[in-house]
Amino acid sequence: MRLRLRPSDDSFYEFFSRAAANLVKGTDLLSELALPGVDVQSVSERLVEVEHDSDAITHELYKKINSSFITPFDREDIYRLGSLLDDVMDHLEAVGSLLYLYGLTKLPTLPREIHEIVKVLDQQSRLTAEAMPRLKTMKGLEEYWVECNRLENEGDSAYRMALVRLFSGEYDALTVLKMKEVVDELEAACDAFEHVANTVETIVVKES
Amino acid sequence: MRLRLRPSDDSFYEFFSRAAANLVKGTDLLSELALPGVDVQSVSERLVEVEHDSDAITHELYKKINSSFITPFDREDIYRLGSLLDDVMDHLEAVGSLLYLYGLTKLPTLPREIHEIVKVLDQQSRLTAEAMPRLKTMKGLEEYWVECNRLENEGDSAYRMALVRLFSGEYDALTVLKMKEVVDELEAACDAFEHVANTVETIVVKES
Amino acid sequence: MRLRLRPSDDSFYEFFSRAAANLVKGTDLLSELALPGVDVQSVSERLVEVEHDSDAITHELYKKINSSFITPFDREDIYRLGSLLDDVMDHLEAVGSLLYLYGLTKLPTLPREIHEIVKVLDQQSRLTAEAMPRLKTMKGLEEYWVECNRLENEGDSAYRMALVRLFSGEYDALTVLKMKEVVDELEAACDAFEHVANTVETIVVKES
Repeated sequence: MRLRLRPSDDSFYEFFSRAAANLVKGTDLLSELALPGVDVQSVSERLVEVEHDSDAITHELYKKINSSFITPFDREDIYRLGSLLDDVMDHLEAVGSLLYLYGLTKLPTLPREIHEIVKVLDQQSRLTAEAMPRLKTMKGLEEYWVECNRLENEGDSAYRMALVRLFSGEYDALTVLKMKEVVDELEAACDAFEHVANTVETIVVKES
Repeated sequence: MRLRLRPSDDSFYEFFSRAAANLVKGTDLLSELALPGVDVQSVSERLVEVEHDSDAITHELYKKINSSFITPFDREDIYRLGSLLDDVMDHLEAVGSLLYLYGLTKLPTLPREIHEIVKVLDQQSRLTAEAMPRLKTMKGLEEYWVECNRLENEGDSAYRMALVRLFSGEYDALTVLKMKEVVDELEAACDAFEHVANTVETIVVKES
Repeated sequence: MRLRLRPSDDSFYEFFSRAAANLVKGTDLLSELALPGVDVQSVSERLVEVEHDSDAITHELYKKINSSFITPFDREDIYRLGSLLDDVMDHLEAVGSLLYLYGLTKLPTLPREIHEIVKVLDQQSRLTAEAMPRLKTMKGLEEYWVECNRLENEGDSAYRMALVRLFSGEYDALTVLKMKEVVDELEAACDAFEHVANTVETIVVKES
């Protein structure tokens, strides 16, 4: 019989899987924004709901950390990973709120480059949701973090092209400023997914 | 007699208390900005002075860490907490400097939403100053970090409403850009207080 | 014979030295932007090349961490230092790309304040390149991090003066927005050099 120094308390992994599954709901809602005749207010309200769900999951995780005598890996890393998954959702929710608050819904369509970044986020969320359950064995995660970093680079290029479009002279200065806030939140969400991937990499390096 | 593995060198706690008390001075100065006929140059200069005091406290703390054989909790955490308290002050000072440098003092009044964020900062600084002495016993800190996070959410809402106001068409594009810099620093200060609270939470979780 | 608990695997120090030397190439390219009749497209393309070199160095370092049984200092710190050196290059490269993408090359000259920030970056990169080989002995590094932090403060002042210049009314709102993106990347590069210095300080404090 092999001695296990750290018990694999499955509930910790479940928190990460649930948090990442919730991020897929978030990027699904953002993808709706590309549909013709979309109701931005409704998308924004549903984003607020999934963000509340994320907050609840994160809060439960913190309580679990505080009440557990032993944890499957470092307490601080569990804490950090939970908090970084929550950060992603904050940025996704902000996109919906800003579009609605700034009345950008009155534009005939959002620039195509914005939807390019949303597509990257959609891939990052699916990839993250698939990877989280693999934390239990710490196997097969390298592909995830490499791909998540590659997608962040892709998001960065799409972000730059979105700025070039915004600054092209097609829009008045105030509209540019408002859309820039939205695009900045999208880019921050791409970055936040990368921070999750980097933290997973650090954990795997440390525990292996 | 109970063996104490780590001596409670009180001077470390005093650094945190002094740094946080200095932040209260900083937010008090920002609160003056809401007074009618305020002298923004004078507020800005006094903010530079309290920022220098913060730098001196942080520098003393670092020297103390380097010269101490044992510390009341992890060296790195002491370092991080000192550095994060210093970051808050940098943002508070920047608000005063930007208002003065951009000549925003010529505006009849700053938008009300800016003062809403300052009120949040005022509450965060007082809360932080009350919490720091409790680091010694590591007791009664949960309420602090929960409330500090709640305030950061409140600051975030106030920030969004400030942006809606700035982008309403009431101001010309250059004034919007200048005020946005100021509002961004205020929001960064709210975030920085939250980072302090999160670090305190991490320390308590680790040491408990 | 003195027992060494940790072997000094020189190849780790070489990675940091190579990464920092590459940053000097990056700031040399940015310094070319102040020359009359500079070809911004060529500078931008060469920045992309040195950025790819940085990525390759970082990738090699990560592989080395993963394949090493023992490391000269904490695995996580090696990882973090490598990643922060890489971040600096990302910001340097972004400056070139944005100048080119936004067509800012058509301006007769860039504002003088932009070159002031580039001068600070130039000093930070040389200082960092000189400091990295000293990681091996962990000696004589305090001067480096103190000076790197001082330079970051200088960069911060130059950044503020650059914003004052941009918002002076001399440029139209869209040009202001584009140049602000460039100036923000320059300031982020100054900050990123400071993060490298802070991490070196943390490592030295921990290992000493």
